[in-house]
Amino acid sequence: MDINSYLKVKADYIEQKLNALIPEKNIPFNSLYQAARYSLLGNGKRLRPILTIATTESFGKPCEIALATACALEMIHTYSLIHDDLPCMDNDDFRRGKPSLHKTFGDGHAVLTGDYLLTYAFEIVACDMQLTANHKVSLVSLIAKLAGCQGMIAGQVMDIQAEGKEIDLDALKEIHRYKTGALINASILAGGIIADASVDELQRLNDFGHDIGLAYQIIDDVIDVTAPESKHGKKLASDAINQKTTYVTLLGIDEARKSANALYERSLCHLAKLDQDTSTLKDLAKLLVHREI
Amino acid sequence: MDINSYLKVKADYIEQKLNALIPEKNIPFNSLYQAARYSLLGNGKRLRPILTIATTESFGKPCEIALATACALEMIHTYSLIHDDLPCMDNDDFRRGKPSLHKTFGDGHAVLTGDYLLTYAFEIVACDMQLTANHKVSLVSLIAKLAGCQGMIAGQVMDIQAEGKEIDLDALKEIHRYKTGALINASILAGGIIADASVDELQRLNDFGHDIGLAYQIIDDVIDVTAPESKHGKKLASDAINQKTTYVTLLGIDEARKSANALYERSLCHLAKLDQDTSTLKDLAKLLVHREI
Repeated sequence: MDINSYLKVKADYIEQKLNALIPEKNIPFNSLYQAARYSLLGNGKRLRPILTIATTESFGKPCEIALATACALEMIHTYSLIHDDLPCMDNDDFRRGKPSLHKTFGDGHAVLTGDYLLTYAFEIVACDMQLTANHKVSLVSLIAKLAGCQGMIAGQVMDIQAEGKEIDLDALKEIHRYKTGALINASILAGGIIADASVDELQRLNDFGHDIGLAYQIIDDVIDVTAPESKHGKKLASDAINQKTTYVTLLGIDEARKSANALYERSLCHLAKLDQDTSTLKDLAKLLVHREI
Repeated sequence: MDINSYLKVKADYIEQKLNALIPEKNIPFNSLYQAARYSLLGNGKRLRPILTIATTESFGKPCEIALATACALEMIHTYSLIHDDLPCMDNDDFRRGKPSLHKTFGDGHAVLTGDYLLTYAFEIVACDMQLTANHKVSLVSLIAKLAGCQGMIAGQVMDIQAEGKEIDLDALKEIHRYKTGALINASILAGGIIADASVDELQRLNDFGHDIGLAYQIIDDVIDVTAPESKHGKKLASDAINQKTTYVTLLGIDEARKSANALYERSLCHLAKLDQDTSTLKDLAKLLVHREI
């Protein structure tokens, strides 16, 4: 299967599972499910859950055992977008091709829907009947750390603090690694944990995720100023509006692309140290740095 | 030890652990820890973590093994207050005797600090070296359910939807049970899980928590209109300001107190069915319905 067919098949599979995990219900607080479905379904590249599944499959394990955890990671990604779009954060009115959740359901519902998706993600992992208790504890620990103060939330705080300030490349790299890279890395490592990867193998996956996660965010900086808005699904030049330093403001478009490419090349060296068939992960890494939206 | 000494000793013990769990750090995003410490430390009745510890102790197990989980539950309670106080939610400017987190650190930091405390709570449980993997999986599952869409968050959504509307006693009871009762129940059940309570014993604890959790919130409704503001630590009559239906608006103060008392009496019957020494839990239940702040 070529990589584009692979992406389509896995994205459909993830969409079905997400749909089943948050059904519409005839209950007093159905608006919570409606809001969650509004943000979660029908769109999104599904990059993080696909990385989880692809990593598990690289180790010769079936896709099915990674599916619930993969969906939990997509929920955490979606919650972070919902909270990040709030007026008191990045104040983005447009997301995944439609009005942001708070524009449709109100700010209060947006806060609670984010809280719900984050909480539910941990419930999904803890209740996954296909995994052992040890797997589940490792996954909850990994995800909480890299979605929390050892990762994404720390990055969000650094990002808020840096707004309107001049920061250098090292500081920006740190923000990108925490804010975006950590959850991408968590998605890859989760796939490894589920597949019973050894400590050494997890280290290789971590090195791979570390590089490709940063490369992904650098390309995001580039796309924010280059992609046609109709394709992008959110307001462009939002970094400039929020007075954010990016790889593009510091290095220009061409040098930013070169940095991403160097990270991509290095990420392949980490994969090469694994005995497994990592061809799908390599193809995914290539797509991440050569995407245009 | 009388119950007031017990409360003081346990609250100090919990305070020390919370303090150790979120140390000040010389790092770029230290403001996250400062904000978390601002909301979490130095105040609060510590009701939920004390219930966890008291339940574990009732089963003859040492306090120490419940401490980390107890602190995780206090963090989840605190995150819910931080998000609930936001201008887009209940818009409360005053909490635990000082300005609400968003008044001091800004709305963006308040959203992120709540997210952090919620995420960190799951990390703490998953990383607790004193518990087995099976304990931890049961705890994460329990807490995620009762802090999520089978409990607290569902209650918050129902609460928002009911604002400015007339609702009846059954609907109000449902909101109270979800919004406040569920996390109180989770705190009690967590203590039971840690102490290896049997399924039957957990059912008794659940029945106890179900009644005492609702009684607690009814007394909260009473206190909102009766306590002197200086003692309460948050703005009073906030329910009236937010046009909320409460037990007091539906039944009046005396009948509300009677309802709470009837639930308290019934909660004792559930405890009486347990073979364990539940005298501390009984004393705690009594305090909950006879408190004045």
